[in-house]
Amino acid sequence: MAEGRFYLSVLALSSLGSMCVLFTVYWMWSWHGGFAWDGSILTFNCHPVLMVAGLVVVYSAASLVYRLPQSWVGPKLPWKIAHASLHLLAFILTVLGLVAVFRYHNHQHIANLYSLHSWLGITTVFFFACQWLLGFTVFLLPWASLWLRSLLKPVHVFFGASILALAMASVISGINEKLFFSLKNATRPYSSLPGEAVFANGTGMLVVAFGLLVLYVLQASSWKRPEVGITTEGQVRALVSPARLGEGWV
Amino acid sequence: MAEGRFYLSVLALSSLGSMCVLFTVYWMWSWHGGFAWDGSILTFNCHPVLMVAGLVVVYSAASLVYRLPQSWVGPKLPWKIAHASLHLLAFILTVLGLVAVFRYHNHQHIANLYSLHSWLGITTVFFFACQWLLGFTVFLLPWASLWLRSLLKPVHVFFGASILALAMASVISGINEKLFFSLKNATRPYSSLPGEAVFANGTGMLVVAFGLLVLYVLQASSWKRPEVGITTEGQVRALVSPARLGEGWV
Repeated sequence: MAEGRFYLSVLALSSLGSMCVLFTVYWMWSWHGGFAWDGSILTFNCHPVLMVAGLVVVYSAASLVYRLPQSWVGPKLPWKIAHASLHLLAFILTVLGLVAVFRYHNHQHIANLYSLHSWLGITTVFFFACQWLLGFTVFLLPWASLWLRSLLKPVHVFFGASILALAMASVISGINEKLFFSLKNATRPYSSLPGEAVFANGTGMLVVAFGLLVLYVLQASSWKRPEVGITTEGQVRALVSPARLGEGWV
Repeated sequence: MAEGRFYLSVLALSSLGSMCVLFTVYWMWSWHGGFAWDGSILTFNCHPVLMVAGLVVVYSAASLVYRLPQSWVGPKLPWKIAHASLHLLAFILTVLGLVAVFRYHNHQHIANLYSLHSWLGITTVFFFACQWLLGFTVFLLPWASLWLRSLLKPVHVFFGASILALAMASVISGINEKLFFSLKNATRPYSSLPGEAVFANGTGMLVVAFGLLVLYVLQASSWKRPEVGITTEGQVRALVSPARLGEGWV
């Protein structure tokens, strides 16, 4: 029952996630002339696509690795490597997304990092970098004690979800800002809701729906890997009862 | 120890929450001429203040009621009434915030609900209304069975936190949008980061810091009211062990 609902969610998540990326590509392709890496406005067009793909969709896929029932049994290391690798891919896409907008700004002599969107976005990427480094150092490398891991795990899990929430806020403010820029001198202004506005607003709402579904799956206890030894409270236990195993901790 | 950290968080939350509201008031007062209810731009100025106060700060205070250690013992009804009343106050402030912007738009013949900020904002308020009605009907009125309550509680808790995350995204995109509007024809544009831009960007980042701290306290299990009878898994239990009581469920 719970497993059936989980796979239904995977299907919904895959469809929604793909749509988020494809819609952003289509927006940039159809209304803004496509993509390039030459410092022109076409370089900027890579920014929303790479951010939605990296910081939202691949980031979410990486976060959900431990929710796959296959990951609940057997050794954890391969799943840790998958989790870290997918997050590294998400981070690389995100950094490329940043490079795209800085490259465009620098070529066009536009100031960097002045809007609230950019302040929040760069903070989100900074948290993501810290989170990945913490995860790699403490949870993937073998040196850290069980005590340290159980102490930092709730922090890692909380910031994992928080970074996704901040990414959603960054994307929403970014789409909003881009529409005010691009429709400023249009024959049909943003306030008359031309095709581009409806499409891009819809894409933003899709990103929100996707993010909320990911956050729901992440926190639904029945889809978490049952873990003997560590509780979310940061206490180390030698044994847990079979009843507790069924509930599953983070 | 956990209680000490909780009260430290309450102090931090009260300070941050007050600063969020006061900074928004100061922004509208110092750079935009203050407040009125006459349909002029001064009416619009009530919008950010009422939204930050209602949908973020009072909403958060209402959400955190069950995290007060005083609420963990004795009858739950008075705390339920406090939770519902504070949320009702948050909702009234939010609706007044909506009225302010609609009133300004209608007086100035500006279109309503076209930006992504407004689409997300109105969706957040709609979710808030549904959430309050669900909470009132199922958890405050006495008719619902324990089974129904335990089934809906995880949904109520998840949407409670989600609405705050959506409110944060709405506020961020709103401040960003307002700054692009108000600094469009300024002697010092947004991109040169004049005083107003730094102050309002900072206010937005403060709202994010406040929201993250609230979300952290909400999900930290050791600050939750221990509840005999209902688990977060939606299963009904007759008895829990004293050890589980210390961990506390939602």
